[in-house]
Amino acid sequence: MSTSGAGAPRSEGRIVVNNTDPLKNIRVVLTRPSHPGNIGASARALKTMGLRTLHLVNPRHFPHPDADARASGARDVLQDAQVHESLAAALGGCVLAVGTSSRHRELQHDLKSARDAARELLAAAATHQVALVFGNETTGLTSVEAGLCQLWACIPANPDYASLNLAAAVQVFAYELRMACESDVVRNDAEFEPATLADVERLYEHFGQTMTATGFHDPAHPKRLMPRLRRLLARARLETEEVNILRGFLNSVDKSRR
Amino acid sequence: MSTSGAGAPRSEGRIVVNNTDPLKNIRVVLTRPSHPGNIGASARALKTMGLRTLHLVNPRHFPHPDADARASGARDVLQDAQVHESLAAALGGCVLAVGTSSRHRELQHDLKSARDAARELLAAAATHQVALVFGNETTGLTSVEAGLCQLWACIPANPDYASLNLAAAVQVFAYELRMACESDVVRNDAEFEPATLADVERLYEHFGQTMTATGFHDPAHPKRLMPRLRRLLARARLETEEVNILRGFLNSVDKSRR
Repeated sequence: MSTSGAGAPRSEGRIVVNNTDPLKNIRVVLTRPSHPGNIGASARALKTMGLRTLHLVNPRHFPHPDADARASGARDVLQDAQVHESLAAALGGCVLAVGTSSRHRELQHDLKSARDAARELLAAAATHQVALVFGNETTGLTSVEAGLCQLWACIPANPDYASLNLAAAVQVFAYELRMACESDVVRNDAEFEPATLADVERLYEHFGQTMTATGFHDPAHPKRLMPRLRRLLARARLETEEVNILRGFLNSVDKSRR
Repeated sequence: MSTSGAGAPRSEGRIVVNNTDPLKNIRVVLTRPSHPGNIGASARALKTMGLRTLHLVNPRHFPHPDADARASGARDVLQDAQVHESLAAALGGCVLAVGTSSRHRELQHDLKSARDAARELLAAAATHQVALVFGNETTGLTSVEAGLCQLWACIPANPDYASLNLAAAVQVFAYELRMACESDVVRNDAEFEPATLADVERLYEHFGQTMTATGFHDPAHPKRLMPRLRRLLARARLETEEVNILRGFLNSVDKSRR
């Protein structure tokens, strides 16, 4: 295990991608997992499908003998797992974060099936680092964590009992990623450069400041303004130049008010 | 749990099939499972995907608290599980048995992917009882047991580490059965009202005016600004409320500059 910041250079910029195996550019993030057994079983699930990058955000118990036991022959994946103090840190260097959910959320834009989401992730992973994010076993992702994801995916399930075990859900998604990889349908013809999540976060921050300055946004009574804006722009999957355009406009508003 | 012979009439003949839900005609058979936790986790995996018929052949420990714990909300599936003394008994009434394997066997005729096998199972399950058979965690199926299967299926996996946990494999197959059963299951529910094109045009107009007022946009030298903004917002497929939010922000900019 290595802690945040001890691994490959991530910081603000993009990090090195593996050009021959897109599965290597996909990190799976477990957010606040309660049961160490699920961490181990998830590591095993990933390795069986050819994935190997596991990030953990504030795991309740880790390392732990239960994690080792359930990892079976995938303890190397556990060894290399990176532990972070926030989901934002775990997403460092990524251009796309797909949140997983077993239920419908209010602001769950662009909800895709695991199969379709796997294809999108893999297409982006051909040239960039991407993340697949799982919430806590019981509570899922917080709304702040959810706001860091651009796309949502769920596993079609029995409406009367849709509660997959966390590691079982990891297995299904990892399986779909491998299946997407083995099929020839995924092609990435990205002529545009996707914005980094860090750049997009700074854009939201700037929107908040300028909207407050013009009197449109009241941080004391925020209502649903910022989540709605996040939802809108997340759907668009912003490119670097588009972030620059929007920030340029906000700068011009700031200046023209002085 | 009920023991062989105590349940619905099976004997030599075919048993009653459910004509409305083919998943109900698919039984999952675990042969000599070693770990009761895997039995419970398999029950949960089945129930999440809408399956509910579990047959066990000589489980080492069952019932068992570990099985109950891992079953979580699927203890009803465990309760109804039938225990048999041979795979042949467990297959009573079936017209098709698909054996699962993580490796190539000498007698593994007609090896299919989990996805293709699920489609075949489901097609047969429309009118008949069928079975999906898993072997022991370590040793798989004996050659006698293997001889009772008509078709073989495997989950495409990492050739360097293809060892899925038993319940994880059950989850993947059950998931593929559900996916085969329902296409189009994931819907973005239409709780949001898409904006009219006329509203969106007025939004672009407003952006153009405000961007010109702040000095960001020069209509005499427009470059690609407005087309880029159109492209961005077109991708997002704006909703009425989002148009209102953006126009509200632009109004606040206009006012705060006066």
